[in-house]
Amino acid sequence: MTIATTNRRFTLAHRPVGLPKRSDWDFAAEPVRAPDAGEALVEVRYLSLDPAMRGWMNEGRSYIPPVEIGAVMRAFGVGRVVESRHPDLAPGDHVSGGLGMQEYATLDGSHLTKIDLRVAPLTTYVSALGGTGMTAYFGLLDVGKPEAGQTVVVSGAAGAVGSVVGQIAKIKGCRVVGIAGGAEKCRFVVDELGFDAAIDYKAEDVRKALREHAPRGVDVYFDNVGGPILDAALTNLARHARIVLCGAISQYNSTTGVTGPSNYMSLLVTRSRMEGFVVFDYASRYPEAAREIAGWMQAGRLVSREEIVEGIETFPDALLQLFRGENNGKLILKVGADA
Amino acid sequence: MTIATTNRRFTLAHRPVGLPKRSDWDFAAEPVRAPDAGEALVEVRYLSLDPAMRGWMNEGRSYIPPVEIGAVMRAFGVGRVVESRHPDLAPGDHVSGGLGMQEYATLDGSHLTKIDLRVAPLTTYVSALGGTGMTAYFGLLDVGKPEAGQTVVVSGAAGAVGSVVGQIAKIKGCRVVGIAGGAEKCRFVVDELGFDAAIDYKAEDVRKALREHAPRGVDVYFDNVGGPILDAALTNLARHARIVLCGAISQYNSTTGVTGPSNYMSLLVTRSRMEGFVVFDYASRYPEAAREIAGWMQAGRLVSREEIVEGIETFPDALLQLFRGENNGKLILKVGADA
Repeated sequence: MTIATTNRRFTLAHRPVGLPKRSDWDFAAEPVRAPDAGEALVEVRYLSLDPAMRGWMNEGRSYIPPVEIGAVMRAFGVGRVVESRHPDLAPGDHVSGGLGMQEYATLDGSHLTKIDLRVAPLTTYVSALGGTGMTAYFGLLDVGKPEAGQTVVVSGAAGAVGSVVGQIAKIKGCRVVGIAGGAEKCRFVVDELGFDAAIDYKAEDVRKALREHAPRGVDVYFDNVGGPILDAALTNLARHARIVLCGAISQYNSTTGVTGPSNYMSLLVTRSRMEGFVVFDYASRYPEAAREIAGWMQAGRLVSREEIVEGIETFPDALLQLFRGENNGKLILKVGADA
Repeated sequence: MTIATTNRRFTLAHRPVGLPKRSDWDFAAEPVRAPDAGEALVEVRYLSLDPAMRGWMNEGRSYIPPVEIGAVMRAFGVGRVVESRHPDLAPGDHVSGGLGMQEYATLDGSHLTKIDLRVAPLTTYVSALGGTGMTAYFGLLDVGKPEAGQTVVVSGAAGAVGSVVGQIAKIKGCRVVGIAGGAEKCRFVVDELGFDAAIDYKAEDVRKALREHAPRGVDVYFDNVGGPILDAALTNLARHARIVLCGAISQYNSTTGVTGPSNYMSLLVTRSRMEGFVVFDYASRYPEAAREIAGWMQAGRLVSREEIVEGIETFPDALLQLFRGENNGKLILKVGADA
């Protein structure tokens, strides 16, 4: 096994205003650091690209501390152990964890999770079996609490989390309506993911379309986007509906402040709730969720759609694809050679 | 018993734009209608003045149908039966119900509830033992679910519902912070109602004051007002906090649309929920709540503070007192002679 001696990585240079620019990071090489006792050195293979990354670049209180200026950009991913001073890890092991936006990660072995390529390929561990799948699973089932026969609406339906949310809701016997941008994405969620209907927010009046596709009201609205689509969903809630706050991608790059949902008093009229969650809180139950999702995938009931972008140097541009809404399914950055 | 032959009443003439004007109603006399089989004729004594009345005047979907143009303005109140063709009601009985903004109500006897003046005086049945008390009780306890030792913040703290919410939260062992407008109201909620602290939103930075008075964060925020105060509360939630949406008095008369809470994503960061409720859903449990509230009053642990305005003809101006925030406690319109 040859170990490279340099590690190229993105460190945060500036806190962005609006959309992040390439100059908000420094991209440079440093020597690979050999592991200390308890640590492992991981060759990074695939990194998850997440809208949440934008939030991690901001200062201030959130569910996770901000990335410090000068620190390696936070990123979750998978890779292969090349050197280990942790008793549970050996060279050749495949692992997932918070590897960072870099080619090599040297970190505490207890922060890594071993993954099994006999269950699913490497990329699946950053999508349906990674944070994306966990977010969809716990957000929908634990917060949204859908019941068979109810109507579940998900925004960002063609995106990483949305595409899994809708499929799990179908498995649970719900009627599922996706909201996505463009005819091709709408076709994707209906034809390839099996949603019952899709609304193209770029071409349709979402409020009117929801009335049509959810004539008895929306029981669960899984929100990835915020903004006018959240407001449209609020106008069409069933009684005792649950709005799952997962994200607000429409607001992350706003330079004029977040626009709150002006129809929020519909929560009162319909006796509904809007609730946030953070997937890390469910860490002790990840294995349970991963087993269930893997089972659905093996049974052909759930597909993990992934789009791979190659080369760590493309990271700043690749991230912007998320905000331009260019991806179907999970956007993944391929860093090193395949396993 | 002398029965008047004319009934003066307010009927809705126009749907208001902004603050309601006197000309939005017609005030006229009509002959008193004798009860049909199953009905009772009630001499109205006290009517509840509620911010919610403003919403009932609007067209459109809500938790209750709008008051129709030409119909008697909806109002809850108490009175005395003067004539009955309902088997359970006799002249002299005191009753509560949806009597309407008028001097005499002829209505289905099954829509009336008999009340007992040995338990509490008549006015209490439109305040702590009426819809106000029921709203405070079920909103706080069933939706807010406060636990002893937690911090409960209530806006509109000197108002009808807020003043009861804070007192119940104290009884349940919570730390209670009220938000009210003006030094006198703040004195009232601390000195007379026993809240732990009060924030004068007209003189203080609410966000900063909340950080000071709720250093471990707000566990339950009972919202009667919406607007910037809701946004301030959102910035200071404890983990797994509950925001109870009871009202949004700051928004009811807006002519430029409702302003949504721009800090709503704090629900995600803190894993919190914002939930609406409608007190009518708890009707089957009103007796249980009334028994408990009456017990607290008899034990001197809860006071029902009431402000009485006299004369049905003053209704349009009296209603505006609510929106100007002039009342401490429950604002009640006295219609007829006392019981």
